[in-house]
Amino acid sequence: MADLRSDTVTRPTAGMREAMAKAAVGDDVFGDDPTVNALEAHVAGLFGHEAALFAPSGTMANQIALQLVVPPGGELLAGADAHVVTYEVGAAAMLGGISTRTWQPDGAAIDVEVIAGMIRPAGYPSVPTAAIAVEQTHNLGGGGVVPLATIKHLRAVADKHAIALHCDGARIWHAHIADGVTLAEYGALFDTLSVCLSKGLGAPVGSLIVGSREKIARARVIRKRLGGGMRQVGILAAAGRYALDHQLQRLTEDHERARIIAEALAPFGVIDPERVRTNLVPLDLSKHDLDAPTLAARAAERGVLIAAMLPQTARLVTHLDLDDEAMDQAIEVLSDLLNT
Amino acid sequence: MADLRSDTVTRPTAGMREAMAKAAVGDDVFGDDPTVNALEAHVAGLFGHEAALFAPSGTMANQIALQLVVPPGGELLAGADAHVVTYEVGAAAMLGGISTRTWQPDGAAIDVEVIAGMIRPAGYPSVPTAAIAVEQTHNLGGGGVVPLATIKHLRAVADKHAIALHCDGARIWHAHIADGVTLAEYGALFDTLSVCLSKGLGAPVGSLIVGSREKIARARVIRKRLGGGMRQVGILAAAGRYALDHQLQRLTEDHERARIIAEALAPFGVIDPERVRTNLVPLDLSKHDLDAPTLAARAAERGVLIAAMLPQTARLVTHLDLDDEAMDQAIEVLSDLLNT
Amino acid sequence: MADLRSDTVTRPTAGMREAMAKAAVGDDVFGDDPTVNALEAHVAGLFGHEAALFAPSGTMANQIALQLVVPPGGELLAGADAHVVTYEVGAAAMLGGISTRTWQPDGAAIDVEVIAGMIRPAGYPSVPTAAIAVEQTHNLGGGGVVPLATIKHLRAVADKHAIALHCDGARIWHAHIADGVTLAEYGALFDTLSVCLSKGLGAPVGSLIVGSREKIARARVIRKRLGGGMRQVGILAAAGRYALDHQLQRLTEDHERARIIAEALAPFGVIDPERVRTNLVPLDLSKHDLDAPTLAARAAERGVLIAAMLPQTARLVTHLDLDDEAMDQAIEVLSDLLNT
Amino acid sequence: MADLRSDTVTRPTAGMREAMAKAAVGDDVFGDDPTVNALEAHVAGLFGHEAALFAPSGTMANQIALQLVVPPGGELLAGADAHVVTYEVGAAAMLGGISTRTWQPDGAAIDVEVIAGMIRPAGYPSVPTAAIAVEQTHNLGGGGVVPLATIKHLRAVADKHAIALHCDGARIWHAHIADGVTLAEYGALFDTLSVCLSKGLGAPVGSLIVGSREKIARARVIRKRLGGGMRQVGILAAAGRYALDHQLQRLTEDHERARIIAEALAPFGVIDPERVRTNLVPLDLSKHDLDAPTLAARAAERGVLIAAMLPQTARLVTHLDLDDEAMDQAIEVLSDLLNT
Repeated sequence: MADLRSDTVTRPTAGMREAMAKAAVGDDVFGDDPTVNALEAHVAGLFGHEAALFAPSGTMANQIALQLVVPPGGELLAGADAHVVTYEVGAAAMLGGISTRTWQPDGAAIDVEVIAGMIRPAGYPSVPTAAIAVEQTHNLGGGGVVPLATIKHLRAVADKHAIALHCDGARIWHAHIADGVTLAEYGALFDTLSVCLSKGLGAPVGSLIVGSREKIARARVIRKRLGGGMRQVGILAAAGRYALDHQLQRLTEDHERARIIAEALAPFGVIDPERVRTNLVPLDLSKHDLDAPTLAARAAERGVLIAAMLPQTARLVTHLDLDDEAMDQAIEVLSDLLNT
Repeated sequence: MADLRSDTVTRPTAGMREAMAKAAVGDDVFGDDPTVNALEAHVAGLFGHEAALFAPSGTMANQIALQLVVPPGGELLAGADAHVVTYEVGAAAMLGGISTRTWQPDGAAIDVEVIAGMIRPAGYPSVPTAAIAVEQTHNLGGGGVVPLATIKHLRAVADKHAIALHCDGARIWHAHIADGVTLAEYGALFDTLSVCLSKGLGAPVGSLIVGSREKIARARVIRKRLGGGMRQVGILAAAGRYALDHQLQRLTEDHERARIIAEALAPFGVIDPERVRTNLVPLDLSKHDLDAPTLAARAAERGVLIAAMLPQTARLVTHLDLDDEAMDQAIEVLSDLLNT
Repeated sequence: MADLRSDTVTRPTAGMREAMAKAAVGDDVFGDDPTVNALEAHVAGLFGHEAALFAPSGTMANQIALQLVVPPGGELLAGADAHVVTYEVGAAAMLGGISTRTWQPDGAAIDVEVIAGMIRPAGYPSVPTAAIAVEQTHNLGGGGVVPLATIKHLRAVADKHAIALHCDGARIWHAHIADGVTLAEYGALFDTLSVCLSKGLGAPVGSLIVGSREKIARARVIRKRLGGGMRQVGILAAAGRYALDHQLQRLTEDHERARIIAEALAPFGVIDPERVRTNLVPLDLSKHDLDAPTLAARAAERGVLIAAMLPQTARLVTHLDLDDEAMDQAIEVLSDLLNT
Repeated sequence: MADLRSDTVTRPTAGMREAMAKAAVGDDVFGDDPTVNALEAHVAGLFGHEAALFAPSGTMANQIALQLVVPPGGELLAGADAHVVTYEVGAAAMLGGISTRTWQPDGAAIDVEVIAGMIRPAGYPSVPTAAIAVEQTHNLGGGGVVPLATIKHLRAVADKHAIALHCDGARIWHAHIADGVTLAEYGALFDTLSVCLSKGLGAPVGSLIVGSREKIARARVIRKRLGGGMRQVGILAAAGRYALDHQLQRLTEDHERARIIAEALAPFGVIDPERVRTNLVPLDLSKHDLDAPTLAARAAERGVLIAAMLPQTARLVTHLDLDDEAMDQAIEVLSDLLNT
C-alpha cells in the first residue's frame, strides 16, 4: 500500500528504534527523565526560548499553549480552517473556555490588516482579544508557508495591542527547510510554539510546547490536568531526538516528491502546483465529478491511501516511508481515477 | 441629557408602570406565574412556535438558545462581529463549551455561499458544525436588516446539512417594522430565536427564547443553571406584554429619527445614510481625527451621550425616550464636534 | 390553597408594589440605575463590606461568588447537601470549572476539624483548596442556624490556610432574627456572601453578592457573562429595599408558625421540633409509609402545597403569605395524612 | 537511591525493552496500530468487556471514563480522597463540567448505605446523580482493597437508581493478586474501568479505559479532544502487553516487602501493618514531630526517596525496581529518622 493519508503514518526507522531501546529513563511526572529533560532543553534552544515541555500529541501541545495565553472567557483569533479551531474537536472552547473568532483563510496568505481590525481592545464592551494563532506550515492551506514578513507584521500588531502570538508549528520544520528561515528566527516572533516530532520527522509519538520558563511551569500543571503527564517518557523522547538529529534535512525529499505529484495531477484541474511548497498536496475536487470520499475509496481499492479532509477536498502527504515507487503508484492510480 | 448610547436606556412609560403595579404574579420557578405564562404563550404564538421562555437578559436568552442547538464540544458558525460572539463575554465557549468559527461580516449583508463552505459535516476529522447564528437586525452592522431571501437561503443550507439556525432577534421587531416581514415568517425559518423586550420595546427587563416544546423544556433547566430562574416574574412580564401591545408600532418613529441623524452627519464622511435602515446609527471614525472614546467624551460634556463601541466606531441609537428636541441637540453637538 | 412549598412563593405586598411603581430607574448595565445603586450600597453597609451587586437569583449570586473565590480548576469544600452543590444544577463545575469535595452533613452542625482535615494545601500533588462554603441558615439542614462560634472557628481555619470563606446567605436574615447576631458580625467573617430578597423578605426577584470593591468589579463581568446584566433594575431593587425596611423583623412570626407546625406533626415521628429554629420544617419520611411525592400529591388534593425535596424528605416553609388560618389548615391536612 | 515515592518510577526491564524495539506499529489515530489493537482487545477480554482504549495516563483514562458516564452538568459521587477528585487537578469539573459530591473516606472501607443516601434521583429539584466512582486499590486509603461484597452491594445500589459505576483501577492488579478475585469478576461489576500499565506492572507509559463498544467509540472522540490521540502507540502497547504477560504475578513480592516495611515502622506509631494489604505503605505523621515534607527531605539526604502526600501523610511504595537491599536501606533510614 502507498499510504499518502498523512505523514503521521511514518514508522520508526531502525536507528530510531535502537535509540529508543537504549534510552535512559526516569519518572517524568517527578521531572526525573534525563532523556526528555535533554530533549526539552534542546528544542527550547533551537527556538531560542527558555523552556519546553513534551506532550503526547500536537493537539495537546496546542491546547496547553492556548490555555497559557488565553484565560477562560478570553478570545483567540485564528484562521477559520486552523487546526486549533477545526481539527481539535472543539477543545479550546470545551476544555479551556476559550472563545474563537476566525478570519477567512486564503491558503497560507494572511491579510494582517483584516486580523488587526478584528482585535477587540480591553475597555470596550466586547470580550477582549488575548492572542492570535498562526499555523506554520498551513495544513488546510495545502502546506503553504506563511512568509516571515507576514509573521513579523503580525508580531508588530500583537505588540501594539499587548496580546500574544502562538505558532501551531506542527510542520514548522518544513517551513524551515523550504524557506531557509532559522528556527530561532521563528522562535523570536512567537510567545508560544507547538512543534511535532511525529509527522515529517518520523518519531512515533510526541510534540513539545516551547515558551518562557514561567509559561512552561504553568504548562506542566495544565498537562497534568489534561492527562498528558506520562512516566518513562525517555523512550519517546529518544526517538524525537534521533529524528531531529538525523531526519530533519531529508524533508527536502518529501517536498520534491510532493511537487512531482502536484505537477502530475495538475492537468486534471484539481491542483495548482505552484502552491505546493512543502509535503502536502491538497486536491480541490469542487469542479470534479468525484467527491473526496469516493476518490479515496477507489484509490484505496487500488493500493493508494489518501485522506478525504472535506467532501470536496482530498489530501496527499509525502513522508519518510514513501519512496519513489510508491509515489509513482500514487500518480498512476490517481491520474487514472481523475481522468474518468 | 440626550442619551443615544443605546435603546436599552429607555424607562418604563406610565402605562407600563401601571401594568406592572397591577400584575398578577406567582412563583415562576414552580411555573405558577400567570402573567409570564401568558406572555410566553403570546410570544411563542407571534412567531408560530410551540413555546417560549422568559430570561433576565438578551445575553442569557442567546446563550440558552445556543446550548439548545450546539452540544458541548460542538461548533457554531456566526459573523465575526455577532453579539453572541463578541459582546457576551465569551459565554458560548466558557459556559457552553461551544466552539465558534466566524465569517467576515459586511454589515447585514451575508454571503450564504461562504457560510455553506464553512460547514464541517459529521464524518470528517474536524469538529462537526451544529448550528448557524444570524442577528436580526445586525447590531455592529449598523442596524441593517438581513433580507428575508438571505435567511431563506440560509435555512435551505442548514436543512441540507441537518444543522440548526438560531436568530439573535434582539431587535427583530425593528426588522419586522422596517421590512414588513411578519414575525411568523421569521419564526418559520429558525429553530430558535431570542427576542428582547427591553431595547426598542421599552420594557425594563427581559428577553425570551422561542422554540419547540421539547427545546423550551430543556431551556428551563439550562436557565436554572445559569441563574435565570426568577420568582414573581409577572411584574416584568406585564411590562413586556404592555410593550408588545402598545409600543411596537411606534418603532417607525425611531427609524425616521435615525435616518434624519444619519443624513445630518453624512457630510462629515462618517456614515452612509443609505445603510441606516432601523434605529442604529454607526459612525465610522477611521478617517476622522477623533477616535470614538474622545468623541463620546466631548459630546457628553455637552449633554449628548453616545457609545464608543470600538476605538474607531461610535454608535447612536434612537428610542422611546428620545424626542425631536433631543435628536436636534444630538445633531447640533455632533456636527459641531465632527466639523473640527 | 395554603402554599408551604417555599418562601419563594410570596407575592409583593401593597406597599412594595407602590415602591416599585414609583422607583427611579436607569440602565444598570451602564451603572445608571439610582435605586439599585442605593440598594447595593445599603446592603454592603449592612454587612460591613465595601460593595455589593444585584443578581436575578440566589443561584446566580452564589455562582458569581464562587467564581470570585475559586479559579477554574480549583477546589471548593462544602456540605454534601449544600445548595451550591446539589440545587444549582451542577453550575459550579459546568460554568466555573470548580471542583467540589463535600463533607457529610448533620443539619446545621458542622465539625470544623473534619473540614480542616479535608483542605489540600498548595505544594502537594493534589488540586489545592481555594474556598469553603457555608449555608446560613441551612436549607436541607431544616433551616438550622450555624452557630457563630462555628463560623469563627471556620474563619480561623480558612485564615491559617489562606483560603476564602463564602456564605450562602439566602436566609441569613432568619439566622440574624433567630440568634440576634448582627449582619455586620456575619459580614466580618466571610470573604463573600450571597443574600436573597425574594424568600423570607418577600421581594419578587433578586439577590446580592457582597464583598470587596475589587471582587464586585470582577463580579460585574462574571454577571454579564452569565446573562445577569439587566437594565432598569430599579423596579426590582425598590421592592428589595422596601422588604429590608419593612419586612425583616416580621420573620419572627414565620419562625413561630414553623415551630407550631413542627410540634403539631412531631407525634407522627417525622420531625424533632427542637431542630426547627427558623421557617423551614423538614419532614423525614424514611420511617413512614408515605413517600414525599405521595404525601405532597395527597396534601395538594386537599389544598395544602408542600415540597418533595427527596424521595423521603418533604419540606414545609412558613412565610409572609401564610397566615394562621393557612397554618391551621396545613396542620389539619398533614396530621390527617400522616396518621393513616 | 532507594526510590519508594511511587511504583510509577519503575523502568522498563530488558525483556520489555526488547518487546518495544520489535513492536509492529501503525498510526493509531487511523486505528492502524496492530499492537495497540491487540492489547486493547486483550485487556477488554481480561475484564469481560467488549472494548478498551489506550490512553497516555491514568488521569486521562479516568477522565475519559467519567465523561462517558456523567454528562456535563451531571453529578458524580466519589470518596473525598479519591484520585479522580483530588489528584487529577480538578479535571472532572474543568474539562468535563462534572459536579462531584464526596463521602468521608475510611481507607478502603466503604459504607454503601451512606453512598445510597447521597444519590439524588432525577425528578427532584437537585442535580441528578449519574455515577459513582470506586478506587481499587485505594491509593490514599493506603492501598487497601475494597471487598468484593462491597462492590457487589454498590452495583445493586447503582442498578436500583439506574446510574453507572466506574472503577479507578489504576492498581486493580494488586487487588486481584491480593484477594484472588478474578479480573472478570471485577469487570462484571463496573460500567467502565480504567487500568494502568505503568505502576505496579512496570510499563513506561499507558492506561486503558474498558467498557462497551458504544462507550469506547465515544471515548475515542473524547481522547482526541483531550490530546490523547497518539500515532505509533504500538511501541508503548508492546511494553504493556509484556508487563501483563510477565510482570503481573510478581506483585506478590511487592506486597510482601510492603508488609515487612510496615511491620518495621509500626513501633514508631505511624502505621498499622494490618492495614497494609498491597504495595502502598502510608505513614500517618499526625502524632509525630516530623511533618511529611521534612521526613521526605531528610530521608532523601540519606538516599531514600519517599512521597509527602499531605502535610502529615507520607507514602512508601514497593515495586519492580525495589529489591531487598533497597527495602532494608529504607527501613534503616526511616527507623532512624522516626526514632528521633
